[in-house]
Amino acid sequence: MTDPAANINRAIEEAAPPLSAALSPLGRRVVLPFGIPSQAAEARGKTLNGTIGQITDGRGDPLPLPSMSETLPGLVADDRRRAFLYSPVQGIDEMRRMWREWQRRQVPPELPSSLPLLTVGLTHGLSLVADLFTDETRAVALAEPFWGNYGQTFAVRRGARMLTAPAYVEGRYNATAVAQVLSSLPAGEPALAIVNAPSNPGGYSPWPEERQALCESLVEAAGQRPLLVVCDDAYAGLVYEDEISRASLFWDLIGRHENLVPIKVDGSTKEFCFFGGRVGFLTFPFAPDSAVAQALESKVKCLVRSTVGSPVATSQMILLQALRHGGIDQEVERVRRVLAERYRALKQALEGCDRRLLQPLPFNSGAFSLVELPEELGLTAEQVRQHLLAHHDTGLVAVSPKHLRIAFCSVDTAALPELVRRMEQAVAELAGRTAP
Amino acid sequence: MTDPAANINRAIEEAAPPLSAALSPLGRRVVLPFGIPSQAAEARGKTLNGTIGQITDGRGDPLPLPSMSETLPGLVADDRRRAFLYSPVQGIDEMRRMWREWQRRQVPPELPSSLPLLTVGLTHGLSLVADLFTDETRAVALAEPFWGNYGQTFAVRRGARMLTAPAYVEGRYNATAVAQVLSSLPAGEPALAIVNAPSNPGGYSPWPEERQALCESLVEAAGQRPLLVVCDDAYAGLVYEDEISRASLFWDLIGRHENLVPIKVDGSTKEFCFFGGRVGFLTFPFAPDSAVAQALESKVKCLVRSTVGSPVATSQMILLQALRHGGIDQEVERVRRVLAERYRALKQALEGCDRRLLQPLPFNSGAFSLVELPEELGLTAEQVRQHLLAHHDTGLVAVSPKHLRIAFCSVDTAALPELVRRMEQAVAELAGRTAP
Repeated sequence: MTDPAANINRAIEEAAPPLSAALSPLGRRVVLPFGIPSQAAEARGKTLNGTIGQITDGRGDPLPLPSMSETLPGLVADDRRRAFLYSPVQGIDEMRRMWREWQRRQVPPELPSSLPLLTVGLTHGLSLVADLFTDETRAVALAEPFWGNYGQTFAVRRGARMLTAPAYVEGRYNATAVAQVLSSLPAGEPALAIVNAPSNPGGYSPWPEERQALCESLVEAAGQRPLLVVCDDAYAGLVYEDEISRASLFWDLIGRHENLVPIKVDGSTKEFCFFGGRVGFLTFPFAPDSAVAQALESKVKCLVRSTVGSPVATSQMILLQALRHGGIDQEVERVRRVLAERYRALKQALEGCDRRLLQPLPFNSGAFSLVELPEELGLTAEQVRQHLLAHHDTGLVAVSPKHLRIAFCSVDTAALPELVRRMEQAVAELAGRTAP
Repeated sequence: MTDPAANINRAIEEAAPPLSAALSPLGRRVVLPFGIPSQAAEARGKTLNGTIGQITDGRGDPLPLPSMSETLPGLVADDRRRAFLYSPVQGIDEMRRMWREWQRRQVPPELPSSLPLLTVGLTHGLSLVADLFTDETRAVALAEPFWGNYGQTFAVRRGARMLTAPAYVEGRYNATAVAQVLSSLPAGEPALAIVNAPSNPGGYSPWPEERQALCESLVEAAGQRPLLVVCDDAYAGLVYEDEISRASLFWDLIGRHENLVPIKVDGSTKEFCFFGGRVGFLTFPFAPDSAVAQALESKVKCLVRSTVGSPVATSQMILLQALRHGGIDQEVERVRRVLAERYRALKQALEGCDRRLLQPLPFNSGAFSLVELPEELGLTAEQVRQHLLAHHDTGLVAVSPKHLRIAFCSVDTAALPELVRRMEQAVAELAGRTAP
């Protein structure tokens, strides 16, 4: 019995020993089998092609129902055609190439990156990483509070241990939180780390010195173990301070240590406001044609095929149309400016709030900000949330016992001072104090 | 420590003991946590809603980029709006209700079925079932040859044992294949069975007597064990013989035995020709508001959220537009007729072929037909496939060492006789015979 995954596992081991060391048993055994997609790829262009279970007009064009096709007149004919047909499992070629260009704006050409693999939104990318590299023996290091869905994706589904250190200490960003967590693990044990900038729920991106400290601490941590750093770039680009870099930490971490492999998870959800489209990408720090990039692509394709069949072609075509558009930078920038304005309004409102009631944590980017409840009030974030719902017609999210998250991305600029006022009021009522 | 899943596991155990017995450890522990989606649901309608990380105009409407929005002018404003926003994790309400109506055309009202849960295409539904109900201790019974991706979804990813019996015996459909497999398992051990009609790769739906035999054999098998029957209805409706029912086996199996629970996996991929859209559904045989349906919904939502975040809103809106359309039955019927014509052309061509070269298996529905290679020729399907590619400009799929699959859904009617001629020719050349 030859192991069908043996060759591709070897390619990974040769080019990226830390990735190889971190593969889960599932990650080790997956490989795209020589099945229908492979056989269909070989048959492309044949005059008689009876390979795929896709209903066509007999010449490769789809037979969309008129009442569905007429929803997409804004796509040119060939794009509309592709919107109704299966996407290749790895994604539509042009989509992958154009997204790679978008990712690499201002990135030095010597930093390698693979052709991004299409995923069904950001979470799917995280879930593929979880499948490939985690199980109940694996630690995942991250700063707390973190996006709750990491818990479902890594711990609940895959059994990984989530180990955390505080993202903020005494009201200030803690750049070395992840490295602190890693230092508690036995030397040599492979680990995953998640870095998320701009962060959810923090709305925080490291300032230049903090960014340097963060990266250096990860490089140092890689001295102790094979270290995979998942860069969750969900909120990429949404940065509102000129001195803060909008570039992904992924680029900073490539080639910094032989034991350190960054992995990029990004997509069109936030920056392109395409929440409903579910277009995400998974990118590795290897040249597109390298054996290791191809080996990882085979593994990811096997998992994509076995979890969702193929990525969404319809959304890819809609996003492609935008990326081809000359003015896309300005369109994206216009959304960023709307959020920047809300950011400034919220920041100002929080700066003026009563610190005995609300202790805002620093934020500078993304979609959120966090407010901590003063410990001496003895209130939980859940109590405040319930009170805001019941008595102040206001919805927020309690992300931990002491933290409330404000999604300023979905509140009008003019309403943000009122939102902060209601929060103060609610806390004051619950704490038996008078609001200022 | 209270187990957050305890209540919903109890609801499943009370209403559906066989489902409860078959839950995998993962299936047992998943439950939608009280996280962002739950908190956002509670905040719906509040004047200030800062719950979700979704960029809006501050009043709940999206801010789509103009170059993306202009691709969808065929959707009315409110639908276009929803196409760009997140779908609820369980799917958009109207979509779920309309798909349930579509599923239940001609179904007696007394047969219960849940509101379908949205999935990212059919495969995602299968993969959710695999997560909930299988691991390395579980047997999955099915007829062979089967769709290869079942292997990835159930065996490679989840470690389940795939046990098979031949779908055809001496050139005839074997209605009791799955029951035969099940009878080999120790009594009392929970098992999954997959039934797929119309089938891939067989293109076969049971004729009335065979259908009765199939259902009775499954009911009998349920006498021995908790039995979950996954009805893979990917090719639903694509039936070309008047005497063959187009209804899902799901409806036949509801309420037939206390140990038997059918699960329906279907979607818009084939019947609505929406391959690129990835709109699938997962449906359980319980009333929409029942505690057990709600409990299963919580589990599925946890898995959907942790694997893909949320289903595709864009595609749901496109499919919804079609389902609302008065003429949708005729549009779907028109596609079925195109395929029926190809079916008849292929059937006729295969009936006339040289049985010493090709042994066609019976087919009557779906998108495919199978041809078996006569054993005495000593040829593998892969050899014939390669030869067809290299010398006859023709692509087919080798689904087993002796079976070639013809996807007549993607070949023009007029070309099908030529396709069969080339197959004969290729086999004859390889076998050193002269083609007829």
